[in-house]
Amino acid sequence: MIQATIVGGSGYTGGELLRLLLAHPQVEVVQVTSRRHLGEYVYQVHPNLRKQTALKFSDPDQLGACDALFLALPHGQAQHKIDHYASLAEHIIDLSADFRLRSSQAYQQWYGALHAAPEWLGRFVYGLPELHREQLRTARYASGVGCNAAASILALLPLAQAGLLEKDAPLIVEIKVGSSEGGAEGNPGSHHPERSGVIRTFSPFGHRHTAEVVQELELSNVSLTMTSVDLVRGALASAHATAPAGTTQKDLWKAYRAAAAQNPFLRVVKEQRGIYRVPEPKVLAGSNYADLGFDLDERNQHVVALCAIDNLMKGASGSAVQCMNLMLGFDEMAGLGFPGLHPI
Amino acid sequence: MIQATIVGGSGYTGGELLRLLLAHPQVEVVQVTSRRHLGEYVYQVHPNLRKQTALKFSDPDQLGACDALFLALPHGQAQHKIDHYASLAEHIIDLSADFRLRSSQAYQQWYGALHAAPEWLGRFVYGLPELHREQLRTARYASGVGCNAAASILALLPLAQAGLLEKDAPLIVEIKVGSSEGGAEGNPGSHHPERSGVIRTFSPFGHRHTAEVVQELELSNVSLTMTSVDLVRGALASAHATAPAGTTQKDLWKAYRAAAAQNPFLRVVKEQRGIYRVPEPKVLAGSNYADLGFDLDERNQHVVALCAIDNLMKGASGSAVQCMNLMLGFDEMAGLGFPGLHPI
Amino acid sequence: MIQATIVGGSGYTGGELLRLLLAHPQVEVVQVTSRRHLGEYVYQVHPNLRKQTALKFSDPDQLGACDALFLALPHGQAQHKIDHYASLAEHIIDLSADFRLRSSQAYQQWYGALHAAPEWLGRFVYGLPELHREQLRTARYASGVGCNAAASILALLPLAQAGLLEKDAPLIVEIKVGSSEGGAEGNPGSHHPERSGVIRTFSPFGHRHTAEVVQELELSNVSLTMTSVDLVRGALASAHATAPAGTTQKDLWKAYRAAAAQNPFLRVVKEQRGIYRVPEPKVLAGSNYADLGFDLDERNQHVVALCAIDNLMKGASGSAVQCMNLMLGFDEMAGLGFPGLHPI
Amino acid sequence: MIQATIVGGSGYTGGELLRLLLAHPQVEVVQVTSRRHLGEYVYQVHPNLRKQTALKFSDPDQLGACDALFLALPHGQAQHKIDHYASLAEHIIDLSADFRLRSSQAYQQWYGALHAAPEWLGRFVYGLPELHREQLRTARYASGVGCNAAASILALLPLAQAGLLEKDAPLIVEIKVGSSEGGAEGNPGSHHPERSGVIRTFSPFGHRHTAEVVQELELSNVSLTMTSVDLVRGALASAHATAPAGTTQKDLWKAYRAAAAQNPFLRVVKEQRGIYRVPEPKVLAGSNYADLGFDLDERNQHVVALCAIDNLMKGASGSAVQCMNLMLGFDEMAGLGFPGLHPI
Repeated sequence: MIQATIVGGSGYTGGELLRLLLAHPQVEVVQVTSRRHLGEYVYQVHPNLRKQTALKFSDPDQLGACDALFLALPHGQAQHKIDHYASLAEHIIDLSADFRLRSSQAYQQWYGALHAAPEWLGRFVYGLPELHREQLRTARYASGVGCNAAASILALLPLAQAGLLEKDAPLIVEIKVGSSEGGAEGNPGSHHPERSGVIRTFSPFGHRHTAEVVQELELSNVSLTMTSVDLVRGALASAHATAPAGTTQKDLWKAYRAAAAQNPFLRVVKEQRGIYRVPEPKVLAGSNYADLGFDLDERNQHVVALCAIDNLMKGASGSAVQCMNLMLGFDEMAGLGFPGLHPI
Repeated sequence: MIQATIVGGSGYTGGELLRLLLAHPQVEVVQVTSRRHLGEYVYQVHPNLRKQTALKFSDPDQLGACDALFLALPHGQAQHKIDHYASLAEHIIDLSADFRLRSSQAYQQWYGALHAAPEWLGRFVYGLPELHREQLRTARYASGVGCNAAASILALLPLAQAGLLEKDAPLIVEIKVGSSEGGAEGNPGSHHPERSGVIRTFSPFGHRHTAEVVQELELSNVSLTMTSVDLVRGALASAHATAPAGTTQKDLWKAYRAAAAQNPFLRVVKEQRGIYRVPEPKVLAGSNYADLGFDLDERNQHVVALCAIDNLMKGASGSAVQCMNLMLGFDEMAGLGFPGLHPI
Repeated sequence: MIQATIVGGSGYTGGELLRLLLAHPQVEVVQVTSRRHLGEYVYQVHPNLRKQTALKFSDPDQLGACDALFLALPHGQAQHKIDHYASLAEHIIDLSADFRLRSSQAYQQWYGALHAAPEWLGRFVYGLPELHREQLRTARYASGVGCNAAASILALLPLAQAGLLEKDAPLIVEIKVGSSEGGAEGNPGSHHPERSGVIRTFSPFGHRHTAEVVQELELSNVSLTMTSVDLVRGALASAHATAPAGTTQKDLWKAYRAAAAQNPFLRVVKEQRGIYRVPEPKVLAGSNYADLGFDLDERNQHVVALCAIDNLMKGASGSAVQCMNLMLGFDEMAGLGFPGLHPI
Repeated sequence: MIQATIVGGSGYTGGELLRLLLAHPQVEVVQVTSRRHLGEYVYQVHPNLRKQTALKFSDPDQLGACDALFLALPHGQAQHKIDHYASLAEHIIDLSADFRLRSSQAYQQWYGALHAAPEWLGRFVYGLPELHREQLRTARYASGVGCNAAASILALLPLAQAGLLEKDAPLIVEIKVGSSEGGAEGNPGSHHPERSGVIRTFSPFGHRHTAEVVQELELSNVSLTMTSVDLVRGALASAHATAPAGTTQKDLWKAYRAAAAQNPFLRVVKEQRGIYRVPEPKVLAGSNYADLGFDLDERNQHVVALCAIDNLMKGASGSAVQCMNLMLGFDEMAGLGFPGLHPI
């Protein structure tokens, strides 16, 4: 049993981490912090956790030592205290955007600010096990992933690994997301009467998660187009890519099957009949699986690569726990067994 | 053509009033106020009104004279300035709760404050034309209605008018409502991830609209139980009442048919087949109709009386325009012709 | 490890049973039948189960022996073959309505048909562990529960057990339900454009589940009013009951706390602040918990008792697995650890 | 006043036509047919039309003469009887796909069947007034539009008309649609528990409406990617196009403003603040407006052009009535005044 602490436990990724770690067979959660909800029972904020734990939110300024420290703070905070955090725990997983990019220049370009701890950027591993499994086994520090970046990368990973992605062709990724992606803080646009039933293209390009896709897939010409739809959990990335001349559906099948075989949380969904023929995020709520699909227009080598995830799980807390499992030598799937629901 | 002004035009009832009055054949909207959105085009707040008007929100402290003044302010404000408002317009319709109750005692009991202008309470007519049509034809001042009160009263009105309502028996009204009932201001519970998919009984009894039901139907033993569900517009009241011994389904049919015949916006929905056998708010979005239904358990004289409305229309702005039509001698249905959509 | 078979595995309760049993530490699922989907992988129908099992649907006419047999067939089928089923398995749990009522007369009254195996009615235990825990420990046969009956009974159970329920007073239970309650077969009213956004009171009284409430709580004057709302999983029962003169909120607190202390899957939700102050089904999706709430109008002893459940879990498959755990001597909570999600 | 008949009035486009024509100041609806609902009141199928009309569905085999005949039949039927229909009415508007394409070869390619009346293809005008206004003024026969085609074409029309669309560059149009697009007939995938909350990419390319985009914009390299989301009415097209080198945001502004100035139902939505900064279908429910937006990535001339419509209105019945207005010399906006709702 290791001891874990969550800093920033009242938000959605913090709550999801807590749910996962409370049920994890090798983890004891010793502390969960929240400045705003200090002293409240965690189940008063996360009502699903009632009868799961008697933990109360504690003071983020009174952190004790632990084996694994999860940081689930708003962007821009962890980088200012990373030395302090590192003095408390052997292993750190930071779910914010602070340590996802390897280059302080890229950070400045996409986040519009100087990074406060650029020397730490090189010490973190980008926390997507499907990309960096072996590195994570020996890592002490892992970042989280941007949920939209994770969906985009996983949609394309089989192509990239099989050499079926024309890296110079323009790559358009259309991502449809649920409302939990915006976090637990409301804003005028998240008020239910305004947010319900939307198809709202809030970002045609320039989304910050683009930086992670560029970095991890070594691409140059990528656009992420973000559209909010009426769903709470879930994201679907539809990547419009170009395959090399002569590529066939069979080649794609081979590439995607290989990826699913090598990665316990990847599945290929491409059925000829039934209702669920393609990846759909709704059946993934609460699950760490990423469902992949693809199709090829053989007339022009246009590939539509699909990836559905739960943005709070594979796109945030689930991947973080998967990283922890690797970093601490646990079974990669420990604590991540929930497969999602049907119907939902 | 009369000139109308809306005070408080950026909220949901104000916006709906604006939509109705802009399309009304006998009304010119001369002013719409909003302190927060002062100077903005009204369509920047109400996107459906783009290309409908070039009006901008004006300063509520700079009101000019007009023929009909609509007050769509938060509760508790209009009563402090009612003398001023009365100096500006011959006709006033106040959609807040300030002038719905006839007794200052009842106001104090339900709203927890002394009324600032008790002498005005007797000058206002309760603005539900189905109850006070003749009085409204000569009235200068009308209140709006509480949306839940309107649904409750209309569900029971045919029974009450036909003498089929046991007034001393306990009356339980279960009301299911959409999120627009909470108004345009967000709160933590209206954040989409928290509000989506709810069945949330936020008030088991004691809701303020109870006072209107008690007053208008002369009842004593009434409970309103309020439950939020996943819908933006709409309310359904299910009133559990008791009919006198010997009452039959046929008696109820007669009562409801009579009410629908006498009131242009009441309809009876009680079909033996098809999908839409009972009143449902969703097909009423944007419409001023109130759909009524009923059933009788002949073993124990238990009546379930149903009323579906659009809370922003028949439950607020639609009834207000209907009142104006009566007060100014227009056709009662003028400007209220939109019948709702199917499907939606 | 025991061997379990599910007859009727392509419907929603069958799929949910399968999800639970596949993850149960002491159960091996040996057979899942479906006539319609014979030969298909179970994950082609239940997409959440991809990579969880390689099982295919088998022929319901070719059942082998097993330790625990779950029947998830449409109502009216199991009773015709119950002798055959009993020859195959020591333990049977039938989730249909066939063996929920103890009296063949009551069955005929509510289901409009003679029961085909009335001699079996007395051998089954009504499968709600909160009512019959000790009996279930030695039972060989258990019925499932009607989801609306389960919600109604659990809302009232603390009152009934504490003697705080006036059994002769009229009892009105208003139940709001999601669309999965109607099962996996579509009908014109379940077509998404017609079913989305509804508040549809499809049954004002006379719902068949009433029979279970009457039987299990020994009541006489009960009405269940059923209303469909826009949600897939979940049911909320609001029971309007009468407490004996002199009952206080404190008495109710004691009664509900006692029930939650004695039953691992009951929780009391009654908070003074935060978003989640009352029981809400949405945070229970996938979970076997039943969340209870209550309020008392001390002026007239009117109690509003609330119970939120996932209709497919506590209202069907979850209770069935809980029964199996008791019947086979497993930990009552085994395989039922998933606490639900927040947000969702 | 002209007399109009609707053939196929029980479906969604037929019902919407009926709603529009009943409220049209210059139209009398004399007949509405439905084989399945023969003899029923139209409001039993379209519950919004209760108290709007006493019409019953009549026999499609007993059509009388009329001034304007609207055909709202399933694809493939009207072409077999077009001579008969033409003998009954001076003006015909066919909302199916039968007469949208000008070439019988294209019809065969996309619809997989020989066209039964190829000689009629040249007599019909493609019924999008924004493309063919002048031609429609003298036309006797107009087709309807594919809703996805209409959204795609209108998104791009300002670019095309201003010469800002690189016609040879690959054009990817991602379209998100509500469930009403599938029509009034249910199928397993439209069952509410399966359809609710989806992000379902049911067609990555090859959608039949592509043919209309190709024909009307004279393009060659177009892909439509179709994704169902949780909404009943509405479609949003996001077209990823390429502008000529040197194109600026200002050029785009000029092109879109010109289009909105020339077309009464086109609006540009591109705000810097507020909730509604981009086109969104939800505020267009029931409205004939098409809201347009755009953005330009000046690094690579990538344009994202947006168009939001109500698929049953601008994407079907609204455009059909607009065509009728032009063909019969009425005001182009007659009967199409409803601006949509906020909130909804």
